[in-house]
Amino acid sequence: MSKLTFERRDAFADPSADRQPLYRRLADQYRRAIGNGVLRPGDRMPSMRAFMQRHGVSLATATESYRLLERDALIDARPRSGYFVRVPATVLPNASEPDLAMPPGEAQFVGIHATISAIVSKYQRYPQALNLGGATAAPDLYPTDALQQAAMRALRREPTLLTSAGPDFGDPALRAIIARRALEGGIEIGADEVIMTHGGIEAVNLALRAVTQPGDTVAVESPCFFGLLQVLESLGLRALEIPASPSTGLAVEALNFALQNHRDIKAVVVVPNLQNPLGSVMPDSNKASVVELCARAGVALIEDDPYRDLVDGEPSPRSLKAWDTDGTVIHCTSFNKTLAPGMRVGWINGGRWHPRVGMLKFAQSRHNDQLAQVVLAGFLGTGAYARHLRRLRESLRLQRERMAAGIATAFPEGTRFTSPRGGMFFWVELPHRLSSAAFFEAALDDGIRIMPGTVFSNTGRFDRFVRLSCPSAHLDLVDEAVRRLGRLATRMIERNEADGSKR
Amino acid sequence: MSKLTFERRDAFADPSADRQPLYRRLADQYRRAIGNGVLRPGDRMPSMRAFMQRHGVSLATATESYRLLERDALIDARPRSGYFVRVPATVLPNASEPDLAMPPGEAQFVGIHATISAIVSKYQRYPQALNLGGATAAPDLYPTDALQQAAMRALRREPTLLTSAGPDFGDPALRAIIARRALEGGIEIGADEVIMTHGGIEAVNLALRAVTQPGDTVAVESPCFFGLLQVLESLGLRALEIPASPSTGLAVEALNFALQNHRDIKAVVVVPNLQNPLGSVMPDSNKASVVELCARAGVALIEDDPYRDLVDGEPSPRSLKAWDTDGTVIHCTSFNKTLAPGMRVGWINGGRWHPRVGMLKFAQSRHNDQLAQVVLAGFLGTGAYARHLRRLRESLRLQRERMAAGIATAFPEGTRFTSPRGGMFFWVELPHRLSSAAFFEAALDDGIRIMPGTVFSNTGRFDRFVRLSCPSAHLDLVDEAVRRLGRLATRMIERNEADGSKR
Repeated sequence: MSKLTFERRDAFADPSADRQPLYRRLADQYRRAIGNGVLRPGDRMPSMRAFMQRHGVSLATATESYRLLERDALIDARPRSGYFVRVPATVLPNASEPDLAMPPGEAQFVGIHATISAIVSKYQRYPQALNLGGATAAPDLYPTDALQQAAMRALRREPTLLTSAGPDFGDPALRAIIARRALEGGIEIGADEVIMTHGGIEAVNLALRAVTQPGDTVAVESPCFFGLLQVLESLGLRALEIPASPSTGLAVEALNFALQNHRDIKAVVVVPNLQNPLGSVMPDSNKASVVELCARAGVALIEDDPYRDLVDGEPSPRSLKAWDTDGTVIHCTSFNKTLAPGMRVGWINGGRWHPRVGMLKFAQSRHNDQLAQVVLAGFLGTGAYARHLRRLRESLRLQRERMAAGIATAFPEGTRFTSPRGGMFFWVELPHRLSSAAFFEAALDDGIRIMPGTVFSNTGRFDRFVRLSCPSAHLDLVDEAVRRLGRLATRMIERNEADGSKR
Repeated sequence: MSKLTFERRDAFADPSADRQPLYRRLADQYRRAIGNGVLRPGDRMPSMRAFMQRHGVSLATATESYRLLERDALIDARPRSGYFVRVPATVLPNASEPDLAMPPGEAQFVGIHATISAIVSKYQRYPQALNLGGATAAPDLYPTDALQQAAMRALRREPTLLTSAGPDFGDPALRAIIARRALEGGIEIGADEVIMTHGGIEAVNLALRAVTQPGDTVAVESPCFFGLLQVLESLGLRALEIPASPSTGLAVEALNFALQNHRDIKAVVVVPNLQNPLGSVMPDSNKASVVELCARAGVALIEDDPYRDLVDGEPSPRSLKAWDTDGTVIHCTSFNKTLAPGMRVGWINGGRWHPRVGMLKFAQSRHNDQLAQVVLAGFLGTGAYARHLRRLRESLRLQRERMAAGIATAFPEGTRFTSPRGGMFFWVELPHRLSSAAFFEAALDDGIRIMPGTVFSNTGRFDRFVRLSCPSAHLDLVDEAVRRLGRLATRMIERNEADGSKR
């Protein structure tokens, strides 16, 4: 596999450059800067005005130079943001598709907590490590100032927010706004069918508690978010892992097979949009099929949908709930990923189990605190949220492109991954001889947190994978970390091979 | 039973008053105002300065007048607050003690949710009703301004509080302060042995989940807080109700008998200080005995202790945890009752189950939101909390005294209750022929919320009781509501008697 370098492009430079027109000479100057890494993929180009001033040229000359660089695929115009050094498409092969011919395993009780605890306590021994293991964006990608101002306004307007108990199930104004926004995603519910929760994870807990008893079987995607496995473990539930594809998510035919052959399945949990860790988005036809399969089997379909608004492009894809006609789908989501990780605000619609979900929420933790809800209602009620989402998606796209280029350049031959259509992480398939558990340990020693594939399944099936996230806006640090991870992986494979040939 | 009136005291007034010294004539003027209800129990007397100005008298005369009124038990001096019209001690008999000779019932699955839902939905049909059914104080008794200012400061100092995820198990600074304060209550734990929760109710949920499986038996006080019964119901647990006394709380000998005869008890849940609804405080010797009994039986003792700081006098009584030597006691509490009902901040120490509690908290709802914790840390870290508690206890004492006097005056003969040593509610035992369920309905029609005794037990044992709280600082409204409740109870009893004699 050829690695991406910029020498090839530098060869475009004409040795007789000084006899070229000014706009062409200036373009070449930038071409070389890009070629030798002075300007890097994703870097912002000077504004037209700055370019004109810096080089003492007219608008026409500046425009022509940029047109030329753009034609040669060296820079990109981004709407309302200016020009950026283009991030080359990666040339790594896509991650492997799951083997659907493989018979599904048995449902099994989950024992993932010890593994995750070990990782967390190792993390804590390296508090300064660069975090490529998380699942939220950096604070600087969220509207910190606007939310801070909104919170101050809310406190001035309603000083008793902190000292008076809020209404059951959440702030009525917020629930009404959420119901209205849900309509955009194809979900038709009233404000009283929205129950506010402590993040999406409490919503998923309530959903599972509403439809299962300890010992029951729950079908989950394989791989899936380790937090879900922890919930199953804590509730004494059995997981039946259904293969999921890095491109299209949950394998519908495998689910169909499982529903027909495992009569004790009480719920199916799916992340339909930007699955964690795969980054897959289910095609509409698959979404429709999954809802229909579950409805026909009489099995609750719990969708965990916190990433929907992070999918590139508009409108955002629909939730599974949009296809629900009989209350089969329990919809869980949060604003932790899209807006404010510190506010811990999520919500749930319990489908036909909604009254039971309400009872469980009241018994488990009463209503949420009011302040965060009032702040959120203020923000969602204006156009500010839509504007923020456009900026956030654009920033994440830039980060992903740059990180994808970094992985493609730095990681050893045999590495594979599928570039997701949004969000903040990559599910990277390592070459065969590399264990992600060992890679995790070595990376941490080297000051970088990654999330090993072992925690995304109860079956040990994903030791060859790591989830890498690009949460930070400090892209130079991330570039450097990816280069170091690539070198580390290469060294570990070489050592494995040396060890292997000695035996 | 004689009702309290002021005529008796008015008779003290001397008809030859105008030949009396000035200080005595002024005192008599106030004595009459108190006697005819112009000044009412709990009303604030003019300050010395205001008294001097109003009557054009010297400090010596004013002081003598007040001394006389105080000697005659008509007014009270309150430290740092001035003089108040004295609230007469109630003359109602104490509430009945539980019958310990009665054999304990069987453990039974809880079915309380439907009853509570019915009450809540009836409440919602009367949104304007005066609320004597709650269990928090009115916002004006909490330090609204100070907390609002603290929140604004926190947001200015750490603008990313809303947009960055907080640390697992809670804010380290807050946890350290809590561990330090716990020492005052006799609890020796480190900051890492404190896990922040969404109010005390999440703490109790986690405690029960840590030590039980569905179907297990949990010993609870009878009567007990209906929220606990809802938690048991939602977790599929069985309740074994152990009698509790209105004066000394959980009956230790009854618990001992139950532990010896019900081998399937997995946990005991106790509110040791200002039990809800009884208002009882367990004597230290009983606390020690209960901890020892549970430790010997190897049964988890879950203490729910949110009212401790509301007990009159200083220092506050100790928690059960203070007697714990081997991790038997799981300590749950919150700041919802003492400081800020809107912030939903509680915490738990899981005793020897602490790691399992931590796992369950992480799986159930992750960390709490940061802002409320930072605000709380700022408030607890200074002397402001202790000052606030002194004021709050004093305000609640005044409210209770006035409400106790109102109940004693207005409620029909045969009414009994024990005045608690702190907090905000009364457990009122109605005369025999009156059902609290019917009384609840009639009161709500009359615009007053009360909490019927039926929800404080799974056995239907407490239909003759109501919990009345005095949450509001609008004492005149509360006075009026108590008078109306008294008239209503009297009418209902008369009607019952008329119906009875017709049969």
